[in-house]
Amino acid sequence: MQGHYFIGIDGGGSKCKALLQNHSGVIIGEGLSGSANPATDLSLAQHSIVDACELALAQAQLSPDILALCHVGMGLAGVNLPSIKQKMLQWQHPFATVHLTTDLHIACLGAHGGQDGSVIISGTGSSAFSVLNGQQLNLGGHGFTAGDKGGGAWIGLSAARLCLEAMDGIGGYSPLVESFKQQLACKDATAVAEIVNGAPAIFFAGLAPLVITAAQHKDPIAMSILREGADYLSQLARRLFIFSDKNLSMIGGLAKQLEPWLAPDVQAKLSKALHEPDYGALLLAQQQTGVTKADLLIQKTQEGPVYER
Amino acid sequence: MQGHYFIGIDGGGSKCKALLQNHSGVIIGEGLSGSANPATDLSLAQHSIVDACELALAQAQLSPDILALCHVGMGLAGVNLPSIKQKMLQWQHPFATVHLTTDLHIACLGAHGGQDGSVIISGTGSSAFSVLNGQQLNLGGHGFTAGDKGGGAWIGLSAARLCLEAMDGIGGYSPLVESFKQQLACKDATAVAEIVNGAPAIFFAGLAPLVITAAQHKDPIAMSILREGADYLSQLARRLFIFSDKNLSMIGGLAKQLEPWLAPDVQAKLSKALHEPDYGALLLAQQQTGVTKADLLIQKTQEGPVYER
Repeated sequence: MQGHYFIGIDGGGSKCKALLQNHSGVIIGEGLSGSANPATDLSLAQHSIVDACELALAQAQLSPDILALCHVGMGLAGVNLPSIKQKMLQWQHPFATVHLTTDLHIACLGAHGGQDGSVIISGTGSSAFSVLNGQQLNLGGHGFTAGDKGGGAWIGLSAARLCLEAMDGIGGYSPLVESFKQQLACKDATAVAEIVNGAPAIFFAGLAPLVITAAQHKDPIAMSILREGADYLSQLARRLFIFSDKNLSMIGGLAKQLEPWLAPDVQAKLSKALHEPDYGALLLAQQQTGVTKADLLIQKTQEGPVYER
Repeated sequence: MQGHYFIGIDGGGSKCKALLQNHSGVIIGEGLSGSANPATDLSLAQHSIVDACELALAQAQLSPDILALCHVGMGLAGVNLPSIKQKMLQWQHPFATVHLTTDLHIACLGAHGGQDGSVIISGTGSSAFSVLNGQQLNLGGHGFTAGDKGGGAWIGLSAARLCLEAMDGIGGYSPLVESFKQQLACKDATAVAEIVNGAPAIFFAGLAPLVITAAQHKDPIAMSILREGADYLSQLARRLFIFSDKNLSMIGGLAKQLEPWLAPDVQAKLSKALHEPDYGALLLAQQQTGVTKADLLIQKTQEGPVYER
């Protein structure tokens, strides 16, 4: 594989990350571009992927022509949908080879250094994913409208719902209600409703830190939200255990904040994630092109140090 | 007021109804037109209102010129928002006078024949409203995104959420899950998620009958949804009792189906609604122009029978 490169792509709705590794296993460049969710915008996603790769090549002072020598592992949001995956596979891409999978799969590969294992994820959304002997299990992650419980958007939406009820004199009242109104610069329920109606997931995810901080200060409404969200994630984790009970990590933007709210039996099984998803995508490209860690180490002794992230 | 007419307008997101009454108190025409929610589309709402009035005049074989002789009571969704109300009041309308209020207010006036009283509403959304001595209290009704619990859209969305969880092996499983998948022609959670994500309130409201039927057959998931929704409506009703405890009715497309799920203390206070909201809007126009029932009855004896809806 000398003269070839590996790229790991982590693509989602808000950004696309590319990680470039040379044939010796050295990370030589990174690129960051825009939205890369092919379910939202196929053409934009493909542009963002190429952009991120070219930025990574530029950082390594390599020409864009090198794309044709790159083996690219891609983990993308949206390709769990068969119709979207099909469209991505029809792409006339500029790379040597493309190895396409979901964002969840590369996150899991990254977390466990390419080994079998499971992840529960709490970011804007939520999900659970496991790989065992080439089999995958994906639970949750059904989107903001009717799923993604325990993710940031769900946490913010729950706060909106409970604060509106509190303003109507229903359910409990707590300091969270006041800080919520303050954050939205609203003085009554009508004003809050006008802002939150039809707002996107990302808006509600922006309210999650308010809830997490309040829960840390023992606010009863905030605590009830995190408890309900974490209970759901604990249930997902227990379903994963039936499939595979090794190497469970919690990842995503809210992992650290929500971990203490998980059920004790789930917390006890958690281990720290090893790498980021983009590195998992790199590992996928290596695995799929038949390159082993041993191969890279042989190159290493011949050519110099390997940078392991 | 001889030579003048009254029109009651009941305007919402899906349709606009106009009810035309002559100066003798006889209903002489009805008109039905399209969407009339000024918060969604101000110009369309105004067009729909005029359309519905012209249709009502046409049914009474009266020329559109008669609009200038009409005193119009309007109950419109969206005018609870001050900015929207302001815009509607600036309308250069073709009527003699316009008396503008919310859809909830005319529903309450209609339900209690223009008398003080309260309503709890379950249609696509949900809400609670009370009038006492010229004071109004409105609770709930904060919209599909973070409110409207116990309405049809919330019921359908709850079914989507719980059925997706059941398909993941979380929470209970019941026949509702199968009938839900069948209704959406989906064989797995991924397919369900693809359909429900981002779907509008009206889509979820269309799933409510499935849940109601299942609950009538003792389906545990369906029963838990209706119980939670009705509990919320019962709480709204109890808040209204603090403000006013006379003349409570339950109205809206799901009133009859949800009434048995309300708390016993709330059910015990319910009385049957007398008239539809469009008739409440007519009553508003009469009240605001100083016409009393006695006036209309005097006209009646002079001119013939009054048709009371």
